[in-house]
Amino acid sequence: MPSVDSGSPSTVPAGRQQRRREQTRARLVEAAQRLMAERGVEAVGLAEITDAADLGAGTFYNYFQSRDEIVEAVAEASVESMGAALDRMTAGMPDAAEVFAASLRHLVLRAVTDPLWGWFVVRLGVAHPKLIEILGPRAARDLRRGVDAGRFAIPDIDIATSCTFGSLLATLHLVLSAETKDGADRLFAQTMLCMVGVPAGEAQEVASRPLPPLPVDDA
Amino acid sequence: MPSVDSGSPSTVPAGRQQRRREQTRARLVEAAQRLMAERGVEAVGLAEITDAADLGAGTFYNYFQSRDEIVEAVAEASVESMGAALDRMTAGMPDAAEVFAASLRHLVLRAVTDPLWGWFVVRLGVAHPKLIEILGPRAARDLRRGVDAGRFAIPDIDIATSCTFGSLLATLHLVLSAETKDGADRLFAQTMLCMVGVPAGEAQEVASRPLPPLPVDDA
Repeated sequence: MPSVDSGSPSTVPAGRQQRRREQTRARLVEAAQRLMAERGVEAVGLAEITDAADLGAGTFYNYFQSRDEIVEAVAEASVESMGAALDRMTAGMPDAAEVFAASLRHLVLRAVTDPLWGWFVVRLGVAHPKLIEILGPRAARDLRRGVDAGRFAIPDIDIATSCTFGSLLATLHLVLSAETKDGADRLFAQTMLCMVGVPAGEAQEVASRPLPPLPVDDA
Repeated sequence: MPSVDSGSPSTVPAGRQQRRREQTRARLVEAAQRLMAERGVEAVGLAEITDAADLGAGTFYNYFQSRDEIVEAVAEASVESMGAALDRMTAGMPDAAEVFAASLRHLVLRAVTDPLWGWFVVRLGVAHPKLIEILGPRAARDLRRGVDAGRFAIPDIDIATSCTFGSLLATLHLVLSAETKDGADRLFAQTMLCMVGVPAGEAQEVASRPLPPLPVDDA
């Protein structure tokens, strides 16, 4: 007589069931991200998400307890992973000004190469505190590092962090709406370096340095 | 026999009827602004607006053809009038850097003293193109004037305009959410002056100059 996995409600092995569960969850997150990128985070209903993922309406609550929970999951999947990659990229950089500039440049370039990601970030950033929860502390950390190193002159860290965040969202919106915006990543980084007190000529030099590639997510 | 105004459907004189119409319209605009400030521009239904204005649901379409039309009316009433007042205040200012700084300071101070206005601007700015249509050209004009006068060094006017707009919205949000933010207007203006290439010490001096009062709207 074959042994039966009593913990599983079906005859499918537990490992395979777990993988299927993860795949279904990922389909819901992906569908939510696409819809929210297209129409705004608040405008998307749960039934639309299950429908776009080609799943029954009842499926949703097997994976998420609320609308807010899937928004957080989308943000984790698409922004937290980007933040973590930027952290790895900048970990060994000696110049705090370059850390700040390279991170901002990669965020703009990502929106250019992956507009779905860009629109999601823009629409999330204005509607939900999650984005500033993920990116705000990183920006504040980079700004403080620059001040400590004598690279930045900032009258108020909170205001500078808010301005960096607001400028990023507005610039992503501009870049996503524009026909062509070659070099927008460098121009934006240069503008932000000036904002934090780097002299104009130096800001241009730092923003134009060769940009290291973003490390591939191996999580 | 008294003469009858055949153009009017009631016996109320046309002038008084016109005034009543304007008052009712103003009540709808005011109710819409309050609701949109509290909950976001997109989250407010037409029936809620008429309800908050203590009017019948059918009244709405006597005054506005669509939801978008009342959003534009609220924006005109609350932001266009502010923009026009800033234009009058800065018309005689000789220093382009002070024009930019004084305008930004008044926008922050207005949000501090009138949080309903501030929240409306924040929620409108992120949801609707109307705000950048009103403030964007003014910001771009002030930035160009600063470049022409040799006061500003800006690598890209479009990006600098977007960054000013995004920074303003994020700073208004910060100020509206903060417990106390004394001097936020000066700190924000100083941060923006640095962004457009004014050296740090000079930015501080310009942002701290006595602020002329905003001319009263006599329209």
